[in-house]
Amino acid sequence: MFAFDADTVARAAGPGRWDVELSDRWNIGPNPNGGYVLSVIAAALFDAAAGQPDPLSLTAHYLRPASPGPGVVEVEVVREGRRHTHLHARLVQDTERVRVVAVFGDLVAATGPTLVREQPPDLPPREDCLARPRQSGPAIGPQPTMMERFETRLSPASGWVRGEPTGVPEIAGWIRFADGREPDVRALPMFADAFPPPVFELGPAGWVPTIELTVHVRARPEPGWLMARFATHVLVDGYLSEDGEIWDGAGRLVAQSRQLAMLLPVRPT
Amino acid sequence: MFAFDADTVARAAGPGRWDVELSDRWNIGPNPNGGYVLSVIAAALFDAAAGQPDPLSLTAHYLRPASPGPGVVEVEVVREGRRHTHLHARLVQDTERVRVVAVFGDLVAATGPTLVREQPPDLPPREDCLARPRQSGPAIGPQPTMMERFETRLSPASGWVRGEPTGVPEIAGWIRFADGREPDVRALPMFADAFPPPVFELGPAGWVPTIELTVHVRARPEPGWLMARFATHVLVDGYLSEDGEIWDGAGRLVAQSRQLAMLLPVRPT
Repeated sequence: MFAFDADTVARAAGPGRWDVELSDRWNIGPNPNGGYVLSVIAAALFDAAAGQPDPLSLTAHYLRPASPGPGVVEVEVVREGRRHTHLHARLVQDTERVRVVAVFGDLVAATGPTLVREQPPDLPPREDCLARPRQSGPAIGPQPTMMERFETRLSPASGWVRGEPTGVPEIAGWIRFADGREPDVRALPMFADAFPPPVFELGPAGWVPTIELTVHVRARPEPGWLMARFATHVLVDGYLSEDGEIWDGAGRLVAQSRQLAMLLPVRPT
Repeated sequence: MFAFDADTVARAAGPGRWDVELSDRWNIGPNPNGGYVLSVIAAALFDAAAGQPDPLSLTAHYLRPASPGPGVVEVEVVREGRRHTHLHARLVQDTERVRVVAVFGDLVAATGPTLVREQPPDLPPREDCLARPRQSGPAIGPQPTMMERFETRLSPASGWVRGEPTGVPEIAGWIRFADGREPDVRALPMFADAFPPPVFELGPAGWVPTIELTVHVRARPEPGWLMARFATHVLVDGYLSEDGEIWDGAGRLVAQSRQLAMLLPVRPT
């Protein structure tokens, strides 16, 4: 069994209730990565949304860091329509950690015009890209285990990875699961938070905690490597938005993300 | 009293419960505009978030069209932290119409680096821009009352406004309330949904219902006209994302928005 599937199991445990177990294999510092935590919550939502296979939009509010170990996801089916199922979820570990609203639908059943004006990042072949370093920041604490779950090849335009921040908060590259699991719509929320924060290109940063993350899944990805681009266009008094686009190997845009986060000089201990 | 203030009153009516009255003065067709409905819900949230004056992020899921008339906003304070208060709300009119998650904070108390890479739209003086036509689409139904609430001056680059869609789904312009009410953080969610959908630049469209709208308030606006730019970069099989930025007269980015919507040929009756 692949790590992502083994670590995102949600077991129905009563009406509107799923038991989950957060793994420590997706940590940044002592806490599970936000995209991973969203994926665990989404596992319950996929189950609850039964007839609708694709998470069109997921919004997570990160109230407190989650912890490795057991938790409960409480799900409310807010509305089941013909096209869309809206859901609401809470991840509880003693206290509530994350609040989610989501809408599921069926991307393959959708009909209408298509116009994609975004281009995939202009990346050289993977052998000319840069492997992501294991250590992602000066004050991040214990070695992040999450890096071991992915193969990441960053654009040579990323200066941070060579210890030479460019001053331009953009990071692009190739990514896939290290154990060969293919990407699908379940994995896209994870990939939407799996790159180093582009603000690392502004110089030493301690911690970039996500306040809110919204992921729009726009298409089902083909097997193979994904391409992704993340950029911060607006940083105001330490609050930043980070926009991401993810493309599959066929050059198809499969997900968009935007998060609101804070740029903090050091991680609180 | 200005129309926006008169029409976004939330009266505390018990623990976690606010009574509201949706006006028909902000309609598109027979239903109140989504940004207006969010502003009414936000009125209850501003009250509930008491100590935190600024809505850093608001996400609304539009489950069913709202109707002019009375409603109840049920609010849960999810977490009150030192910096941020997270809230959850439901607008109920017989049945639930809109679900919201939000986080409030204090933008003036924020400290940290600033880097804004977005530029305001390149707009000519207002006298060289185009007034928005009252009728916004061929199949939209009754005359939208919402247009009367705003003064809008669209960039001459907008072809739709002259009946000559450009094929490029972008719309930019100046906007303010028609009755002279100044913009503030309460009004920004309204302005984030007050422009014609940029997909009108692709040709005749019937209806562009919002599924999910997220607004990030990034700064408190100065009095005066606002500048705004809305663009659809990704339209796939009729599902579109629409990104917006709003600037105040001092050239400061004050809000960002992204919505997921559908492009439908006609509005259901």
